[in-house]
Amino acid sequence: MTEARPLLRHLRRCNRWTPDFFVPFVVADQQVGWVRREFIPVCSRHPEVFGCSDDRVAVLDRWQTVEDRTRAMDPALRRMAEEGHFTKWRDELYAAVTAPGASPLLYLERAAVARFGILGTGVHLNGYLTQNSRPHMWIGKRALDKPTAPGKLDQLVAGGQPATLSLMDNLIKECAEEADIPEHLARRARPVGAISYQLERENGMRRDILYVYDLEVPADFTPRNTDGEIDHFLLWSIERIIEELETADSFKFNCALVVIDFLIRHGHLPPEHPEYLALQQGLRTHDGRLQSAPIAGRPDSPISLDPPPAFP
Amino acid sequence: MTEARPLLRHLRRCNRWTPDFFVPFVVADQQVGWVRREFIPVCSRHPEVFGCSDDRVAVLDRWQTVEDRTRAMDPALRRMAEEGHFTKWRDELYAAVTAPGASPLLYLERAAVARFGILGTGVHLNGYLTQNSRPHMWIGKRALDKPTAPGKLDQLVAGGQPATLSLMDNLIKECAEEADIPEHLARRARPVGAISYQLERENGMRRDILYVYDLEVPADFTPRNTDGEIDHFLLWSIERIIEELETADSFKFNCALVVIDFLIRHGHLPPEHPEYLALQQGLRTHDGRLQSAPIAGRPDSPISLDPPPAFP
Repeated sequence: MTEARPLLRHLRRCNRWTPDFFVPFVVADQQVGWVRREFIPVCSRHPEVFGCSDDRVAVLDRWQTVEDRTRAMDPALRRMAEEGHFTKWRDELYAAVTAPGASPLLYLERAAVARFGILGTGVHLNGYLTQNSRPHMWIGKRALDKPTAPGKLDQLVAGGQPATLSLMDNLIKECAEEADIPEHLARRARPVGAISYQLERENGMRRDILYVYDLEVPADFTPRNTDGEIDHFLLWSIERIIEELETADSFKFNCALVVIDFLIRHGHLPPEHPEYLALQQGLRTHDGRLQSAPIAGRPDSPISLDPPPAFP
Repeated sequence: MTEARPLLRHLRRCNRWTPDFFVPFVVADQQVGWVRREFIPVCSRHPEVFGCSDDRVAVLDRWQTVEDRTRAMDPALRRMAEEGHFTKWRDELYAAVTAPGASPLLYLERAAVARFGILGTGVHLNGYLTQNSRPHMWIGKRALDKPTAPGKLDQLVAGGQPATLSLMDNLIKECAEEADIPEHLARRARPVGAISYQLERENGMRRDILYVYDLEVPADFTPRNTDGEIDHFLLWSIERIIEELETADSFKFNCALVVIDFLIRHGHLPPEHPEYLALQQGLRTHDGRLQSAPIAGRPDSPISLDPPPAFP
């Protein structure tokens, strides 16, 4: 495989952040996220909710229950949204947790997740089939008016995971909205793992765990977007997809990782590929727990095999 | 999944070592392995090959080429074998490398790999099929006279990777020897990833990368061992296998990891399993590079996304 071109840059693009730019976001004396330093003054304008210092933003201890904290934060978040600090209010609640599956310490509007650097969770579906004896995959081309990654390539289906739905119920909902996949077909999707990354963004920090599903779709199935997220769909051969990953950054940053994981799991990347081992490791750089000693610009996250708390 | 029983202990069993018990094994000023402290005096008895101190065992610099070093070490290794320091001489050469795919600094008889803690590589094949609409997997029961893990459960096919064969050629050879799988069927096996672990053993250190392959076998295929490694084969349902992993340590230590990886990739472990994320991360605790700061008893290996050198 001397002709193999580098794929690792896709993982590097998803795993960069500079610790000095961030301070912990703390709830009930536990860190659940990261806030950009320049965002501290914005939080300070809501002293009824946040206690701020140079080295942290904390939800005040006077809000003692999950419900109290969620309610107390909501008007502050809406005010921040009006001021333009979030892209789009979605009325979807995400749980602020110290680790995946831990008890939520509060719930947060999805639009604010990156601003507070709390853990985000999503479901991504690879839709694939064999056509003319060659493996193919359905690829979504994102609408140009999307706030995130307009015009980039995407999975057949992908969506954020609200705290109020099970993974499978959310997947079924997203399958209907994004690709017009009927429930009986969506239910055939099988969970095949998860990938994770941690990424500095202009508006904060993305700390995501994406639960990955594979679905072999029938030859006569054609996806159709119903919610405006995807402009149109492409049915590409695996060779075409590999070439695209090797030569361009046309996939949405995290969708590239999901495709690379698919390529490895389905035998489309040979183990002789010079990046084979590093790719696999890099797809799971962190388990969603907050890293105590991140290294600037390098995703050298420590691994722990302590079992995480039970998933709800 | 409140009924889920822990599987992470299988990963912990494969990822333990105590740094204080080991010193680096050095070739051409580069560390390629680890040697147990109590083995230093054994190496010291071969001053024509090794330079030993309290904190390292090194191949003497007077042996300057790969060939020279390999030749110089051979008689010393044979003497050690006679003294009973290795289990079984196999006449199979493994490459001593600083990282997977790096240029070999010398070649070493396979029996000595763990004694010198050099990187071991293997190929493991999951053989599976659907029977009575339920997923099944072929499991080998290792012969009772094997030096390693007698009587333990194993993959359908698994074998060490000598430096002289390609991965696929080795897999085909092992398929024939271990399960009487004809070449045309073996060639249908597809690479699906790799797992890794680092484990202290009485006789040294196991640092392994296992390249994993999946093969869907025909319903009328029955494996038959031809080389005495496997006593007999079992065709177990996936439920039976999960129950076995949850309740017993009957799988050979590293084969348990290959099965867990299979269960996740094929959707047999739900993402709601409390250990889902930790299991996936733990299956790739290191990429074969020597860790500069191992932590006793905990497999907290740093991850690096620097690309490894090209695989030969």
